[in-house]
Amino acid sequence: MTLTLPINDSKRLQLPPLQIPTRLLLGPGPSNVHPVVQEAMNAPIVGHLDPAFLALMDEIQTLLRYVWQTDNQWTIAVSGTGSAAMEAAIANATEPGDVVLVGVNGYFGNRLVDMAQRYGADVRTIAKPWGQVFSLDEIRTALDTHRPAILALVHAETSTGARQPLEGVGELCHDRGCLLLVDTVTSLGGVPLLLDAWEVDLAYSCSQKGLGCPPGASPLTMSSRAVEKLQQRRTKVTNWYLDMNLLMKYWGSDRTYHHTAPINMYYALREALRLIASEGLAQCWQRHQQNVEYLWERLEDLGLTPHVEQEFRLPTLTTVRIPEGVDGRDVARRLLNEHNIEIGNGLGELAGLVWRVGLMGYNSRKESVDRLMKALGEVLPKTV
Amino acid sequence: MTLTLPINDSKRLQLPPLQIPTRLLLGPGPSNVHPVVQEAMNAPIVGHLDPAFLALMDEIQTLLRYVWQTDNQWTIAVSGTGSAAMEAAIANATEPGDVVLVGVNGYFGNRLVDMAQRYGADVRTIAKPWGQVFSLDEIRTALDTHRPAILALVHAETSTGARQPLEGVGELCHDRGCLLLVDTVTSLGGVPLLLDAWEVDLAYSCSQKGLGCPPGASPLTMSSRAVEKLQQRRTKVTNWYLDMNLLMKYWGSDRTYHHTAPINMYYALREALRLIASEGLAQCWQRHQQNVEYLWERLEDLGLTPHVEQEFRLPTLTTVRIPEGVDGRDVARRLLNEHNIEIGNGLGELAGLVWRVGLMGYNSRKESVDRLMKALGEVLPKTV
Repeated sequence: MTLTLPINDSKRLQLPPLQIPTRLLLGPGPSNVHPVVQEAMNAPIVGHLDPAFLALMDEIQTLLRYVWQTDNQWTIAVSGTGSAAMEAAIANATEPGDVVLVGVNGYFGNRLVDMAQRYGADVRTIAKPWGQVFSLDEIRTALDTHRPAILALVHAETSTGARQPLEGVGELCHDRGCLLLVDTVTSLGGVPLLLDAWEVDLAYSCSQKGLGCPPGASPLTMSSRAVEKLQQRRTKVTNWYLDMNLLMKYWGSDRTYHHTAPINMYYALREALRLIASEGLAQCWQRHQQNVEYLWERLEDLGLTPHVEQEFRLPTLTTVRIPEGVDGRDVARRLLNEHNIEIGNGLGELAGLVWRVGLMGYNSRKESVDRLMKALGEVLPKTV
Repeated sequence: MTLTLPINDSKRLQLPPLQIPTRLLLGPGPSNVHPVVQEAMNAPIVGHLDPAFLALMDEIQTLLRYVWQTDNQWTIAVSGTGSAAMEAAIANATEPGDVVLVGVNGYFGNRLVDMAQRYGADVRTIAKPWGQVFSLDEIRTALDTHRPAILALVHAETSTGARQPLEGVGELCHDRGCLLLVDTVTSLGGVPLLLDAWEVDLAYSCSQKGLGCPPGASPLTMSSRAVEKLQQRRTKVTNWYLDMNLLMKYWGSDRTYHHTAPINMYYALREALRLIASEGLAQCWQRHQQNVEYLWERLEDLGLTPHVEQEFRLPTLTTVRIPEGVDGRDVARRLLNEHNIEIGNGLGELAGLVWRVGLMGYNSRKESVDRLMKALGEVLPKTV
């Protein structure tokens, strides 16, 4: 034992025990979670190959298929946050040289472009102003122009609050031998979404929005078409941690060690999914819709306008235009500091132009809206 | 609202609330954690850009520098488990065509080979039987033969229980313009380790072993030499989620959004690190050493032999030879089912030949050894 080693104590912080303020999280996520979900993280840790944990993994898989409305066997939770699941979808689907067509109408479309390029794709884009969506005609034309191997769309753009309609898109893709990859980060659990009926081949999400769970374990699913493309690759997936060939040996019947799962996050995810199954998916979607409509009414009372056309507004996240002359960042800061309420500032093209208000999972409740509106009434300059 | 959507209820499991057995985790990790750390995960969720959370990130960075004994500015926790931090080290350090020399004397050496190949490295290896380590002379010869850009070694091989001495290796590397990358997954917090004194350029670890935290947020550090190599790359890091250029804009002073951190895991990590700073790093190492020596004595009483030569045994993880005629898997299964104690089975070359017994973090206590020995005495066939 080398106890004579010279220890440098300059970074030995002596800290008080953790003190975290209680916030009402009405931004783009994370959201507050149901007390049962929060408590679940506190269950005793078991090993990642413990029979009790393996059974829980199976439950998560089945319930993810339920909330996504899919029969996909390859449906798991990735051991990271939503961005990791996004990268997993890209990494497993893309081979160098593949033409990947990305619909860019917000921040996360741009991120898909960046990621796909890193995996060697020949990336093409179609673009719309932030807050608008693509029509089926526009998508058809782009598919015929670019003949991509993969079309990537964002179902629910967290940066704009817009919902991209997906009905019919999968059919267009499959008629042309193309896979459909969809970002459902801000839709899963909160926005009507029928993966198999809409012929989606790859989808990913996060845990901390519509599913009402803390962030840290993120859903990923692949159709048999997508699995077939993966299995026909000539090169290894250039991402070990997210290689579905390896992950499925752990999540599937082999149970081969791959990595140590974030045990407690899976506890929380299992409980969050159980609560949705108990409530019922249609009821859960309806709750999100009803509460967001209540939000829109109350915003109107305050003279505030959502940024997105009503037909395409998300039930989970609303972008609200900042009135002229109002310092949006200051309002958000005061909501946080004086009222313990978090809302999001605009991102990218919408920075400074909108606030982002999320009503997701457990927080999609009338009380959330009432508390926010009371606080906004106090914080907004009286001239508005 | 499309409430007429046809919901398929075939996967709508109706489950009872989460029930998890209480285990004593004496395998290769995860381990049980201090009650304070467990409780920390239950603190209220805040946003990933909340001032309270940003302050906590700073505390984590400083305390990680303490436990690693480094001044490296680029010291963070990756939002995934240890394997993600491992891949982050490889992805950020390796450019296609780089010669990467890997010391392979266990499972994780092989994994480094696989990962480095995926990032386009020209991988060379030196090998030793599982359980042995490399001498300084062997390393010098290999460096002169292969002239690598990066030498990758495993400080603490979780698959074998062997400790690779590192004193002098960094100097050899730097004399030859090579970076030293070290796997400290099973050493950080439990095994003497002086990153700067030993001139290590890239290191990664996990949270659930020596740090005594649940799995899910994983330390990564880069020296200024490693950062310089990263900043001189001609190509983007082919991994968006783990690209340190992007991550440092979030962990550094810019606070630019990159991904949503697993908030609660960082709470736990902050508390686990706080407890080590409170105990003192030298005291923490000494505790691990004293308890493992007690384990070795008690194993000898039972007629059991560690696999690794005493000088190179880890204080955190001991591989124990399975006596001839004993069904090792059956013993492990009975310990779990009859005594709620988890130990690990052998991995790879040592599968069927050893058990793996971990005494890590909070579980490095005399009581852990006593409970295991009592149970082993009951479970082992009397002929041993």
